[in-house]
Amino acid sequence: MTDPDVRLVDMTLRDGMHAVDHQFTPEQMADVASALDDAEMDVVEMSHGDGMGGSSINYGFAAADTGEYLDAVVPELTDTKLSVLLLPGIGTVEELDLAVDRGADMCRIATHVTEADVSAEHFEFVNERGLEANGLLMLSHMASPETVLEQAKLMEEYGAEAVYVMDSAGAMLPEDVRERVGLLADELSVDVGFHAHNNLGLGIANTLAGIEAGATTVDGCLRGLGAGSGNAQMEVLVGVLEKAGYDVEPDFFGVMDAAEDVLVPMLTEDTMPELDNDSLVLGYAGVYSSFLRHTRRVGERFDLDPREILVELGDIGVVGGQEDMITDVAARMADDEPAAAESESDD
Amino acid sequence: MTDPDVRLVDMTLRDGMHAVDHQFTPEQMADVASALDDAEMDVVEMSHGDGMGGSSINYGFAAADTGEYLDAVVPELTDTKLSVLLLPGIGTVEELDLAVDRGADMCRIATHVTEADVSAEHFEFVNERGLEANGLLMLSHMASPETVLEQAKLMEEYGAEAVYVMDSAGAMLPEDVRERVGLLADELSVDVGFHAHNNLGLGIANTLAGIEAGATTVDGCLRGLGAGSGNAQMEVLVGVLEKAGYDVEPDFFGVMDAAEDVLVPMLTEDTMPELDNDSLVLGYAGVYSSFLRHTRRVGERFDLDPREILVELGDIGVVGGQEDMITDVAARMADDEPAAAESESDD
Repeated sequence: MTDPDVRLVDMTLRDGMHAVDHQFTPEQMADVASALDDAEMDVVEMSHGDGMGGSSINYGFAAADTGEYLDAVVPELTDTKLSVLLLPGIGTVEELDLAVDRGADMCRIATHVTEADVSAEHFEFVNERGLEANGLLMLSHMASPETVLEQAKLMEEYGAEAVYVMDSAGAMLPEDVRERVGLLADELSVDVGFHAHNNLGLGIANTLAGIEAGATTVDGCLRGLGAGSGNAQMEVLVGVLEKAGYDVEPDFFGVMDAAEDVLVPMLTEDTMPELDNDSLVLGYAGVYSSFLRHTRRVGERFDLDPREILVELGDIGVVGGQEDMITDVAARMADDEPAAAESESDD
Repeated sequence: MTDPDVRLVDMTLRDGMHAVDHQFTPEQMADVASALDDAEMDVVEMSHGDGMGGSSINYGFAAADTGEYLDAVVPELTDTKLSVLLLPGIGTVEELDLAVDRGADMCRIATHVTEADVSAEHFEFVNERGLEANGLLMLSHMASPETVLEQAKLMEEYGAEAVYVMDSAGAMLPEDVRERVGLLADELSVDVGFHAHNNLGLGIANTLAGIEAGATTVDGCLRGLGAGSGNAQMEVLVGVLEKAGYDVEPDFFGVMDAAEDVLVPMLTEDTMPELDNDSLVLGYAGVYSSFLRHTRRVGERFDLDPREILVELGDIGVVGGQEDMITDVAARMADDEPAAAESESDD
């Protein structure tokens, strides 16, 4: 055991928003927040799935605006801290101001793993306003441990009190987590965090591996809610950490109650995270879910198994915004191996 | 990597039978077996969930008898081996005879982790008939690594070609798996296997840990089917092992297709394995699922949270057949801590 004190951040009301198309109502948020506060959760994160300012045509409109959500959630939290998420480029300083004024305790600032430099001003603002600032490096599986460290050091320099390795595509094996988190824990003077997705069925195990390697703050969602196959399932995580001998603040049965008595009745079968073939192949390929729909269409056009295209895209290391590369890659694959392509599509 | 060659045993048609109340039809079994054979699965296991002879008032009647299932499945398998499960005390030599005559290639003989000695004659019979015999030690989390080894050595002596550590209650952490599998791999001259359940969300990770510790044959089910929260999800396991650099025989996309195109259409939402509070607390307590219903009733009677009783039962180390201890334990708990008991039940 490297550290008996792990801080747990519940993101049911943030990453979980993806699973409900950002349609939690302020009343539902208040109920979940209240149950998590009763269960002595360390931190609750709340915002649009893509962070404050995400409510838009591009990312999907939320059921209410940030101010309404904050006003519903803040009164429910007594000892539990409230975090909001901000992605530079999506969220703005105006929204940060609003969050500070309405009672947020901390702000987590997320960038692509190689683009920490876009976050300097945001950290400065959060620190000026006296909130705890954490930095999140998204899609960390795409960068070497050394690159992740270099970027994490930027966030540390900007004023992050913790820097997270985020496995946004659910593409890491436990050894990948240990390498990256371990290096950061050795080299940073601030806390190291880990954020899992469950595309390879490793959400809980990778979080445990991250903690063993030195992470002292980790993320999860009740019932594993979250985009695609979801995040680490919070009530399971609490049980596993207790069983492994770690000292955690939340009450195990209380978190279980929040999941099954409060959250589950708000969900339909369709919104429950599922480890189906789509999420599995995305995790296997290490490609973000925005590629899935396009790749399926392109696969039909070139008579290729879309899974083969996704694996190839993962090997190349595409990132969000490069969806136009799908056609190029598929055309080359169809051209290179017409026979193989046909037999794949017959599978 | 300790061994690049891992044999995969798909138990969708055996442990998965629990999830469908043993109601797969022979035709459904044939379809799943055919898809798994196409995907080059190493071994398919088929029988009542509790093994041959399990079809009864006690364990639930299956939709067809063992002979009908065998006649449906055997013609579908070309390179894939067929395994049947036998629990001494439930299955008999007559059924073993039937399985041998109808084309089974191997028989797996399962006992409680401390009762390997009841299996000597069964191993002798299977070996005499020329089938591969494997031994499975159920609820291995209840015994120390040394005891598991002692029992495994008995099975080795009886003629097992492989001995499995079974985490029947889904109660192990990766370190528990490594300890037990590692010791067996060091000390046995036959192969070591591992069988996971997903109660703590660790089905895939524990199987990976088992392989890293020396297991060369492991179990899984398509879509993670199986009792309660299910087993290791086979298509995910294949992808994870490939990603981790292991050489596995089954075709990743083929196994994915078997899961989503063949198995899933046979299932309802109710039969899909789910990591809910019931399965979580069973894994946390390390208690077999047969205790759940009784404990809930006793909890109501004594005004105790049934979860507290299950954890206590797990600490004591109850095994199947000791369900009468639930009332004793609950009565003592209610007597000892009336105040605590009341506050728990108010949670």
